[in-house]
Amino acid sequence: MPHDFDDAIHLTPLGANRFAGATHPAFANMVGPYGGITAAVLLNAALQHPQRLGDPIALTVNFAAPLADGGFEIDAQPVRTNRSTQHWQIALLQGGDVAATATAVFATRRETWSAPEAVWPGDLPAADALERLSLPGFPAWTRRYDMRYAPGEAPRMAAGESAHSHSRFWVRDEPPRPLDFASLAALCDCFFPRIFIRRGVPAPVGTVTLTSYFHADAARLAAQGDRHMLGSARGQAFHNGYFDQTAQVWGDDGQLLASTHQMVYYRE
Amino acid sequence: MPHDFDDAIHLTPLGANRFAGATHPAFANMVGPYGGITAAVLLNAALQHPQRLGDPIALTVNFAAPLADGGFEIDAQPVRTNRSTQHWQIALLQGGDVAATATAVFATRRETWSAPEAVWPGDLPAADALERLSLPGFPAWTRRYDMRYAPGEAPRMAAGESAHSHSRFWVRDEPPRPLDFASLAALCDCFFPRIFIRRGVPAPVGTVTLTSYFHADAARLAAQGDRHMLGSARGQAFHNGYFDQTAQVWGDDGQLLASTHQMVYYRE
Repeated sequence: MPHDFDDAIHLTPLGANRFAGATHPAFANMVGPYGGITAAVLLNAALQHPQRLGDPIALTVNFAAPLADGGFEIDAQPVRTNRSTQHWQIALLQGGDVAATATAVFATRRETWSAPEAVWPGDLPAADALERLSLPGFPAWTRRYDMRYAPGEAPRMAAGESAHSHSRFWVRDEPPRPLDFASLAALCDCFFPRIFIRRGVPAPVGTVTLTSYFHADAARLAAQGDRHMLGSARGQAFHNGYFDQTAQVWGDDGQLLASTHQMVYYRE
Repeated sequence: MPHDFDDAIHLTPLGANRFAGATHPAFANMVGPYGGITAAVLLNAALQHPQRLGDPIALTVNFAAPLADGGFEIDAQPVRTNRSTQHWQIALLQGGDVAATATAVFATRRETWSAPEAVWPGDLPAADALERLSLPGFPAWTRRYDMRYAPGEAPRMAAGESAHSHSRFWVRDEPPRPLDFASLAALCDCFFPRIFIRRGVPAPVGTVTLTSYFHADAARLAAQGDRHMLGSARGQAFHNGYFDQTAQVWGDDGQLLASTHQMVYYRE
């Protein structure tokens, strides 16, 4: 039986850089679909494009308007293909209007001097030793991830203001699914809005732009398989309606798989 | 006399979302112009577009190919305008080919609950007490900034490998120029490639994508004026030809003006 994630990012080629897709109820958010699934389906248009070169290095998705439940079209243009890099401009359209835009950089990598620098934020108990976060009444997409927060770091509503919004958790697709670029792109948006943590209350929010950098190649993603990854996120500045948050996704072998950043609209 | 920066981002409207510009020798890099000036001129097309709404919140620039010295055209489309946000797709063309793409989010802000979270990375001597970095033989753009590094944190060539690439410095335009969104967008690319610091030797590098988030409104930028700002940058992962770096630009009043991230190609 196909995984809901694969159904949700399924695209039918319409020719001439055009693809047809549809929202999926399993990934519903408060209004329209979960941003991560929109990111994944936009990336998927480039991933399955016949002119694709290499693997994703970077993806920026801009959420221009709420998506309505139902069908959409994606226009994915490889605007520049060099020897080892390829640049994409992508748009998601509903009823002829742009609902989301994206740019992506793909590349073929070769072996070079390599080194980590970010420090593993870990020292939390193994995923098996932690309880899975349960959020009754929250939108469907939250149940598409198995999230296990470090003790004391789970988002708690009505907890009052916190001095910082840093939190860490183990996370994998639910049900488990072997990691690939599309699912990693989606997972980069699964960090709860930092303002929920800072203020201790939910607030109307919406990501306006999301940028993810992929530090792993396909082989490394395959090696991660369907096991839990470690997520770590924090906010940097909350100012007059917009805040940013910056996050990391680590493999369980201690290697950084992705770094991801977003700017989020909020209303008081 | 106009500032070189204003000359370098000058655009002539050609009608129908089109603008003409040209590279400027004062901002030359090793190959083509400094990425920051390209970011600024791309943003400037939206800033001076007659349909502009509000101020920049986020900018992503993708460097698709080296620019040749000389003229270029910019296509800037406001693809979606909502009540308080506006989404842009922008491309820079030379000889009909796409050399860079960008997306930008503009918004009108209103006063809300606001709070800092990132911690001032300071505790370095005042700018006046530090020596200005001098890089003889480096490309012209490096002399368009007055950069004063914290003691021991200036990039040093042939210094051998370092365990980390974190560095901090005071920076302002040279000659001084009152801060605005275009100059802040440019300055977000002035952090030296972290691989130079990690490896202690220069290497062939090129930013492939740059994302900047603006946490300040126009009034706050005006209040910063032409004084030094504090820059802080670090790398996160260097893997097979690509690394990311993440940076902050702080006002001298201790407020975060911008957070900025980039993915950089490198060759061993």
